[in-house]
Amino acid sequence: MQDGDDIQSLIGLMARLPGLGPRSARRIVLHLIAARDDRLARLSHAIDAVAHNARECLRCGNISGAEICPICADPRRLNGEICVVEDVADLWAIERGGGFRGRYHVLGGTLSALDEITPDDLRIPALLTRIPEEAAREVILALPATVEGQATAHYIAEALAGIAGVAVTSLAQGVPVGGDLDYLDDGTILTALRARRRF
Amino acid sequence: MQDGDDIQSLIGLMARLPGLGPRSARRIVLHLIAARDDRLARLSHAIDAVAHNARECLRCGNISGAEICPICADPRRLNGEICVVEDVADLWAIERGGGFRGRYHVLGGTLSALDEITPDDLRIPALLTRIPEEAAREVILALPATVEGQATAHYIAEALAGIAGVAVTSLAQGVPVGGDLDYLDDGTILTALRARRRF
Repeated sequence: MQDGDDIQSLIGLMARLPGLGPRSARRIVLHLIAARDDRLARLSHAIDAVAHNARECLRCGNISGAEICPICADPRRLNGEICVVEDVADLWAIERGGGFRGRYHVLGGTLSALDEITPDDLRIPALLTRIPEEAAREVILALPATVEGQATAHYIAEALAGIAGVAVTSLAQGVPVGGDLDYLDDGTILTALRARRRF
Repeated sequence: MQDGDDIQSLIGLMARLPGLGPRSARRIVLHLIAARDDRLARLSHAIDAVAHNARECLRCGNISGAEICPICADPRRLNGEICVVEDVADLWAIERGGGFRGRYHVLGGTLSALDEITPDDLRIPALLTRIPEEAAREVILALPATVEGQATAHYIAEALAGIAGVAVTSLAQGVPVGGDLDYLDDGTILTALRARRRF
């Protein structure tokens, strides 16, 4: 074994992470070694802890250290409001906003004919089971404004159309807060104009 | 302890790595968890191995798993040619080029009055000791073309001026291979023009 192999194999693993490449992986590894403190050990322990403990919530698909995630287990969250998101990153983004007090349902992707992703590949059947179980009154579709995201939203809206007493809503579309009109795409401006409200 | 704490503390550690931030750290951690294979365990083992084994070469300052790095220990490398670089990343970059068959000397930074970095903070005294020991005939200054890099190069060149039989050289400056003139700064074009050679 060559002496530098440990370092090169760590760089190889790092370089395959999303958003990183060989150059940024080398930079990170050299930074960690140059720090000459317990940073490497802490990072390895933190990864071990996540490897052993992180799991998907059996109810909503969120990732946490428990079988039922803190949001599903929190009795202060509103019953009956379910926010449907594509992935855990979107769930976390909405939680950072801090304005939603209901619970979530993580689909784990969007429908895609091209990638052969059908409703059964996503957590859609589980959503349909949850709605009567939790006596949901509102399902908020917070899915991406892409073709696949909107197709998935339509599919779910149709599947829920037959269930009495469940309102299906979706996030408002318009100008982002702090957004400069000059930098927005035409579609967003048109949508915001059409959905204009009394000042 | 909240259930998601392991995940959040891993994201916190990742977000402090160079080139990463909270968003890219979240993306990487979710990617690792979603992969549902041994990727987390392999990453943690690779980091452990580096934490336990990586060390600076006692001779040149390169980082490897040995007290004397593979380059210094390789008998096929040319004796007497020492390439002086700012940091290990630069050493690796020259090695990838594959054209240099001598050995290296990693300074660990550049002189800087502003940051109070003096020759004794760098591996400059060790370089001066190495030169007679290894009967060096040429010292190649491959230091960055910044003010600090060039000040460091001048300092070393002056320190070596008194040693007989040691040629001090530096990397050629000019147009990068594959470089488009239109995208180059004026200084590089001027330097390349002044150092023009017969075709």
